[in-house]
Amino acid sequence: MRQSFLFTKTRREGPSDEVSRNAQLLIRAGYIHKEMAGVYDYLPLGLRVIEKIRQIIRQEMDKIGGQEVSLSALQDQELWKATDRWSDEKVDVWFRTQLKSGSELGLGCTHEEPMVRMLRDHVQSYKDLPKYTYQFQTKFRNELRSKSGIIRGREFLMKDMYSFNRSQADLDEFYDSVIEAYKNVFARAGIGERTYLTFASGGMFSKYSHEFQTVCDAGEDHIYIDKDKAIAVNDEVMQDDILSSLGITRSNLVKEKSIEVGNIFKYGTRYTSELGLKFKDESGEDKPVIFGAYGIGLGRLMGTIVELLSDEKGIVWPESVAPYKMHLLALDEDGKKVAEIFYLGKEEEILYDDRDVSAGEKFADADLIGIPTRLVASKKSLASGGFESRDRRTGSVKIIPNS
Amino acid sequence: MRQSFLFTKTRREGPSDEVSRNAQLLIRAGYIHKEMAGVYDYLPLGLRVIEKIRQIIRQEMDKIGGQEVSLSALQDQELWKATDRWSDEKVDVWFRTQLKSGSELGLGCTHEEPMVRMLRDHVQSYKDLPKYTYQFQTKFRNELRSKSGIIRGREFLMKDMYSFNRSQADLDEFYDSVIEAYKNVFARAGIGERTYLTFASGGMFSKYSHEFQTVCDAGEDHIYIDKDKAIAVNDEVMQDDILSSLGITRSNLVKEKSIEVGNIFKYGTRYTSELGLKFKDESGEDKPVIFGAYGIGLGRLMGTIVELLSDEKGIVWPESVAPYKMHLLALDEDGKKVAEIFYLGKEEEILYDDRDVSAGEKFADADLIGIPTRLVASKKSLASGGFESRDRRTGSVKIIPNS
Repeated sequence: MRQSFLFTKTRREGPSDEVSRNAQLLIRAGYIHKEMAGVYDYLPLGLRVIEKIRQIIRQEMDKIGGQEVSLSALQDQELWKATDRWSDEKVDVWFRTQLKSGSELGLGCTHEEPMVRMLRDHVQSYKDLPKYTYQFQTKFRNELRSKSGIIRGREFLMKDMYSFNRSQADLDEFYDSVIEAYKNVFARAGIGERTYLTFASGGMFSKYSHEFQTVCDAGEDHIYIDKDKAIAVNDEVMQDDILSSLGITRSNLVKEKSIEVGNIFKYGTRYTSELGLKFKDESGEDKPVIFGAYGIGLGRLMGTIVELLSDEKGIVWPESVAPYKMHLLALDEDGKKVAEIFYLGKEEEILYDDRDVSAGEKFADADLIGIPTRLVASKKSLASGGFESRDRRTGSVKIIPNS
Repeated sequence: MRQSFLFTKTRREGPSDEVSRNAQLLIRAGYIHKEMAGVYDYLPLGLRVIEKIRQIIRQEMDKIGGQEVSLSALQDQELWKATDRWSDEKVDVWFRTQLKSGSELGLGCTHEEPMVRMLRDHVQSYKDLPKYTYQFQTKFRNELRSKSGIIRGREFLMKDMYSFNRSQADLDEFYDSVIEAYKNVFARAGIGERTYLTFASGGMFSKYSHEFQTVCDAGEDHIYIDKDKAIAVNDEVMQDDILSSLGITRSNLVKEKSIEVGNIFKYGTRYTSELGLKFKDESGEDKPVIFGAYGIGLGRLMGTIVELLSDEKGIVWPESVAPYKMHLLALDEDGKKVAEIFYLGKEEEILYDDRDVSAGEKFADADLIGIPTRLVASKKSLASGGFESRDRRTGSVKIIPNS
C-alpha cells in the first residue's frame, strides 16, 4: 500500500489517558483507535495484523478437524438459566440489553451454551461424533476496570473452539491435539519461546486444567516455570504433592509475571447434560456428549506481541503477523524512480512510503510502525548498488539489488 | 469438503415458528441456525456464502479506493447526543446496555458518528482528502418485529462505507462511482437484472437520494419501474413534476414488490459539522469535510438471493456465491473409487457426498443445498463415459469425463 493513500497518520505522543504500552504504541503508529476504556477500533494496519493472526489460527484449527461457524452476540437468557450462568453472582461480566417487548437479553461473553444447543439439531448418534466447531467472534465482557489496552478489552475478537466427543478418552486425545495446535499458533506468532503450558487446578472432569501463559512484565498473572521441562504451574497447584506428581520440584521454579494467551477446558458432561445434548451409542443407549472448549483472544495475542517485541522507537513485528513484509522508503527523486518499479505488483507485501515528507520523519515512522524489513531507496543507496535493507529487530544493514 | 465430515444435517421440514422462505430453506439445508426471532448463527455452508459475498464487496470497495477498518459495537452516548441521534424519538432501534459504573452505552446500529470522530485524528489538511473507509461489522437493531429471516435481522453483518471529500463536486463524483460499484456487486451476486437504482426523496444536500431495490415478492417495499430506462422511483417521488424531471412518465411505470439491498446517502456537512471534522483548504481556511455513507447488508443480500433463486426442491445458488462449485455424489463402490481420485486437491471447490446413505437422500440433499453443478459418480455414469453433470438451475444433463 502507498503510505500517501493510507488514511492513518502516526503521532509522536500517545494519548494521555492510556496507561498500557501496547495501546500507546498501537495508537501512535495508527493501528488502533480508542473509543472508550477497553473498546478499540482496528484501523487498516491493525486489521491486517488481526487478519494474519486469524489466518494462522484458522489453519491450525482446520488441521485438527475444526469447522468454522459464526454465532450471534445476542443471547437468550433462558438458555443460560438452564446452566445457571445467567445471574451476576455466577457470571459477573454480563452486558445486558432489552428487546422492545421488555425481554432481557445478554451479549455473549463466551459461547458454550448456544454452541451446545445448536449441536442438538445435528448430533443424534455415535456416528455423528466426534465434531469440532470454532468461530472468530466478538465477545462482550463488562470488566470493572480496563487498563491493559487490547490485552483485556470489554469488546474483543476471540477464537473459541468447542469439541464434542463420545468418550473421555476421545476428549483426552483431542485435548492433546489442541495443546499441539496452540503451541504452533504461539510459535508462528513469534512468542513461542516465552509461552508455557501452565498447570492450573482441575475441575470435575480432569485432574488439572491448562492455560497458555506468556512471560511478560505487563502481565496481570504470575506463574512458576520449570525451564528445563518447559512447563509451568500457577498458584493453585503450588503444593508439594502436586508438584511432585508433575515431576517438578519447588526449588527449580522461577516466578515470572505472565499473560494468559490461551485457555483450554475439559468440561466432560457439564453443559451437555444440562442442555440435553446426547447421542445414541452402539447399543442404542442415550449418553451425554463429552465436551471441551478452547479459547484464544486475537487482540490479546496482538497486544502481547507488542508488549514483548517493541523497543524505545516502536513496535518490532515478527514477519508472520506484520501488516507488510517490507517498508519501502523513497528518500529522493532517484530513489522514487526505482522504488516505483520495485513496488509494482508487490502491493500486498510492501508498505511504500511515497510521501513528500523528510527522511527523518520516514525513518521515525518506519521504526514506530515496526515492519520487519526497511528498504531505503535513495541516490546514495543506488550508488552503493541498490536498496539499503535494514532488519528492524537486529538493526543489521545490507545492500540488496533493486531488481 | 467431505459431507461425512460436515457436522450439519439437512432436514425435510423447516421450523414451524419461521414464516420466511429464506430462513426456512437456509435452516433446512443447514446454512443457518435460529437463536431467536431476527437472530441467526451462520453454520459452515452459510459462512462460506457470506465469505464469498464479503469478498465480492471487498473487491468492489477496494477498486474505488476504500480502506478497510473495523469499529466497535459498543457506543459512547455522548458522541450520539452531539448529533441528536441518541434518544429513542430520533433513532428507534437502539439496543442499550450499561457499564458496571452505571454509564449507559449503545450497540451500534450504524457508524457515521464514530467513523467521523475517528477521522478527526487523521484529517487536518486538504492534502489528507479524499479518504474512503469501509468495514464489515455487526450491527444491532432493536426491531419491533422480525419475521423476514436473515433479510431483516436484529443482529446482522453489514458493509458500511464512508466517504470524506473536500467539496460537493468531489462527493458527487465519488457517489457515482459507488453506484457503479454497487451495480457490480449485485450483478456478480446474481441479482443484477432484478435490481434497480431507485430514486427516493432527497435530503438537505441532494435533490434525490438513491436506494438499490431488488424486485422480489418477499419484499416489504414497493417501487415503480421504468423497464426501458432501467431505473425506478419509490412512493416519495411519485409526483408528476419529479417524474418529468427524471425523464419518465407515470404510464410507463410498473409497480413491483421489492427489497432494499443497498442504500447510499450524500450527507454533505451533516455529522462532520456537528462533530467538528474539518480541514484547512488551500487558503488555510477551516472547512467541514463533505461526507457520504453507503451500506449493504450481507445477510439481507444472501436472503434475497435465496428468495429469488430457489424452487420447490431447494436453493439455486449462482456460482459466484455458492458454498462450493460442484456437489459430487458417489452412489456406489465403483462411483466412489473414481470420485475419491477426482476430489483429491479440489477440497475447496467440491462438496463431496461420500456418506453411506441412499441415492434418493443424496439427490434430495443436493437439490436442497443448491450447489450449481451436481456430479454423479456411479457404475452407470462410468459406463456412459464418466460423471453425470447436472445443472441445478436448468436441469440440463451431460456426461463429462471423470479425469
